[in-house]
Amino acid sequence: MNSDQIRSLFLEPRSVAFIGVPRKSGPGSLNPVDHLKSWGYQGEIFLVHPHAKEIAGLPVRKNIAEAPASVDLAVVSTPRETVPQVIGECASKGVSAVIVTNQGFSEADTRGAELQKAMLDEAARGRVRILGPNTLGVTNAFHGFTTSFMPLNREEPPVGLICQSGVFFVGSAVFLGGMGIGVDVGNACDLDMVDALEWLGFDPRLKVVALHAEEISRGRDFIEVARKVTGRIPVVALKTGRSPAGARAAATHSGSMAGEDRIADAVMRSGGIIRVNDSDELLDVVQGFVRLPPMRGRRVGVVTLSGAGGIMLLDAMHAWGLSPADPNNQTLAPIQELSPPWMPLGNPLDIWPALMKHGMKRVYRKALTEMLKDPGVDAIICIALALRAAEQAHLGVVEIIQELSEKANKPVIVWFYGPDAPLVRSQVMAQGRALPIPSLERAVRLLARMAQYEEWKERSGS
Amino acid sequence: MNSDQIRSLFLEPRSVAFIGVPRKSGPGSLNPVDHLKSWGYQGEIFLVHPHAKEIAGLPVRKNIAEAPASVDLAVVSTPRETVPQVIGECASKGVSAVIVTNQGFSEADTRGAELQKAMLDEAARGRVRILGPNTLGVTNAFHGFTTSFMPLNREEPPVGLICQSGVFFVGSAVFLGGMGIGVDVGNACDLDMVDALEWLGFDPRLKVVALHAEEISRGRDFIEVARKVTGRIPVVALKTGRSPAGARAAATHSGSMAGEDRIADAVMRSGGIIRVNDSDELLDVVQGFVRLPPMRGRRVGVVTLSGAGGIMLLDAMHAWGLSPADPNNQTLAPIQELSPPWMPLGNPLDIWPALMKHGMKRVYRKALTEMLKDPGVDAIICIALALRAAEQAHLGVVEIIQELSEKANKPVIVWFYGPDAPLVRSQVMAQGRALPIPSLERAVRLLARMAQYEEWKERSGS
Repeated sequence: MNSDQIRSLFLEPRSVAFIGVPRKSGPGSLNPVDHLKSWGYQGEIFLVHPHAKEIAGLPVRKNIAEAPASVDLAVVSTPRETVPQVIGECASKGVSAVIVTNQGFSEADTRGAELQKAMLDEAARGRVRILGPNTLGVTNAFHGFTTSFMPLNREEPPVGLICQSGVFFVGSAVFLGGMGIGVDVGNACDLDMVDALEWLGFDPRLKVVALHAEEISRGRDFIEVARKVTGRIPVVALKTGRSPAGARAAATHSGSMAGEDRIADAVMRSGGIIRVNDSDELLDVVQGFVRLPPMRGRRVGVVTLSGAGGIMLLDAMHAWGLSPADPNNQTLAPIQELSPPWMPLGNPLDIWPALMKHGMKRVYRKALTEMLKDPGVDAIICIALALRAAEQAHLGVVEIIQELSEKANKPVIVWFYGPDAPLVRSQVMAQGRALPIPSLERAVRLLARMAQYEEWKERSGS
Repeated sequence: MNSDQIRSLFLEPRSVAFIGVPRKSGPGSLNPVDHLKSWGYQGEIFLVHPHAKEIAGLPVRKNIAEAPASVDLAVVSTPRETVPQVIGECASKGVSAVIVTNQGFSEADTRGAELQKAMLDEAARGRVRILGPNTLGVTNAFHGFTTSFMPLNREEPPVGLICQSGVFFVGSAVFLGGMGIGVDVGNACDLDMVDALEWLGFDPRLKVVALHAEEISRGRDFIEVARKVTGRIPVVALKTGRSPAGARAAATHSGSMAGEDRIADAVMRSGGIIRVNDSDELLDVVQGFVRLPPMRGRRVGVVTLSGAGGIMLLDAMHAWGLSPADPNNQTLAPIQELSPPWMPLGNPLDIWPALMKHGMKRVYRKALTEMLKDPGVDAIICIALALRAAEQAHLGVVEIIQELSEKANKPVIVWFYGPDAPLVRSQVMAQGRALPIPSLERAVRLLARMAQYEEWKERSGS
């Protein structure tokens, strides 16, 4: 089978068999069949269990052999000792794609390592490809398909996820702001991150792929695939196990040999992958690539109500290798006209004195419009107020940012301060292309990563 | 007047006069009298305006001299050319405390610098103390008092704020999670950060003081006062203007001479002040000191549902100088009994396999109870699920964390992953002493700062 055929079996199966599914269903039972039904999966579902007659309203067979039709994908969660035999039964049934969800294999103990090997031998004999073990499997919201026994929201953001741990599946809202397609490679005994990157990296529905890795193996293949993908869409990686203790723990978690972090780092860099430092940054950068136009340079314009906020941004730009844009006279003159004569204007563009005279709406619209037009400005960070609803309506700034960012060809990021910042941030998300962000430093860090990606594309000739 | 008398006039005035208040009131008018009334201020309010007869339902006088009683504090927001004369009129009326809110002084241009000097001369002649100019003034929720023309929530968290910019007043929810008392020193032409630190540092209602500084002046005095305060309660500082461009901008924002950042750094260190790197960290550390018991060591125990999350924590501990605790056998044995035999246990304590067998409630309660008892554990980070309401109720983990953290004598921080993380975080805040936090790396960084503070107190013999 080629990569595309394998991808289809795992991510868009026409039929799926669950072997070893829990007997209980309903809230708290962690039954993957519940989730699959609630997602409206259109394919066929077969259940295999040695004792039950019916689970979650579906008929149950004693053995995969009894499934009344062909099976694209089998999800195996039987006790670890039985798994090699179950793989053999799958092969006899003609199943070519198997997900093994259980823990207790090479990440656990010697017996687990033996079983993982036996399972692989069975798979090789029967030409079965395995994802896992120690995985939640796959999820493809576009196909209404998930193998996860943890409940997930069906959402369709243009975000792909490849990870070595279920925490990223369940926590995709926290880590990424949601995912459309996810592959948990778990112990990666057969199919691995390189395969998953081929599956996701060319999907036209995705704008960005997020990667959680405890180890990067098959370095050469990884670089080759990564380069092709990152020429198309950005790949953002959180590589963990960078500390000695973290690397040791990775060995008992996913059986990973985290190895030298600096080697993994070099491999990712060669592949054009953006490596982030922590999970807040992962969230911000993924959201940036989902929502913002490209950042074609490193010069940032700032529209601010607060001198102190501008200073915080200048500090952050210095730390992250961005520079304050130097707006031309046509940009500044209209704001200077609205400002008191004693007010020195520049970038950050402090519009507070102007709006105390002429009102928020007029001044904010003018300032943002002029900054967007200035060819010396590659991205704009806006500082704006988030007051309680009655006061906020008077400001009108959410609507201005929504309207002007809609047509913008450069990133617009907004940081809100005030008692209702979370609410106002969610209002901004409802329309336009501006991205609201919880802190000024994070706004700058995100833009630096977006600039890094455009520079990579330029350098690599994509 | 001594520092305590000055503090009373500014933070607990029995009467306040607004000179140059806006004529309009109601939403959008930014009239400080509206805010003061809505806060239920019990003292007397006098208004001065050259033309109006009534503002916000209160009678208006043409001149401060006409105020029918003595005035503890005057808030001046007249055009900058008039301010020196108004200060003289305040002095004649016997007012000893004045807040000058306007911009356009030493931070702006030469004329502004002259006016600031003239204002100070008048103040010296009349024994008037000035806060500002270029400030929102003060706010003391415990006294129902605020001079801010920007609307603020009246809340009474045990958090003091000293800043050089109104953005921290209005954004106190974003920067600190709210403030009880705030002092915006603005240009600090007379009263400055050292004075404000004396006012707030010994207030029995405060558990922590946050500091935003663009410059640290009066270094010796600052260190002396800071040492006394930090022996009592922690002071957490965000010092900005650390980059060359940021320092230049500070000069035109608050008239600050930011000077060498490393000198300010040394001054803060000598005073036992905790300097944070960005505004997310400011928020986390302030919240930590408000809510958590002291961190008396650097050994962290982890209760986790996710091996990957544990690895992320180990990486972060390595980066921040904390170490994983080494739990004793009494701590691990009861969890080992509940786990499959192949599961190697340690710290991070991965309870996932155990709870798949015995349920979330039993295993989570046991694990957290044992970690809390272990004398080799100085703080605990919990990783927990945040599912949708129907599933979450089955977990019962919020209630367990609330109950066990209530009596805990060490910090408990919880990181939630799942679709409803923000909601579940707010549930945890409702009871107990655990602090929910948005990312694992931030949990570790916060604990490192708390350990740093206890070490400072130990070293300085407080």
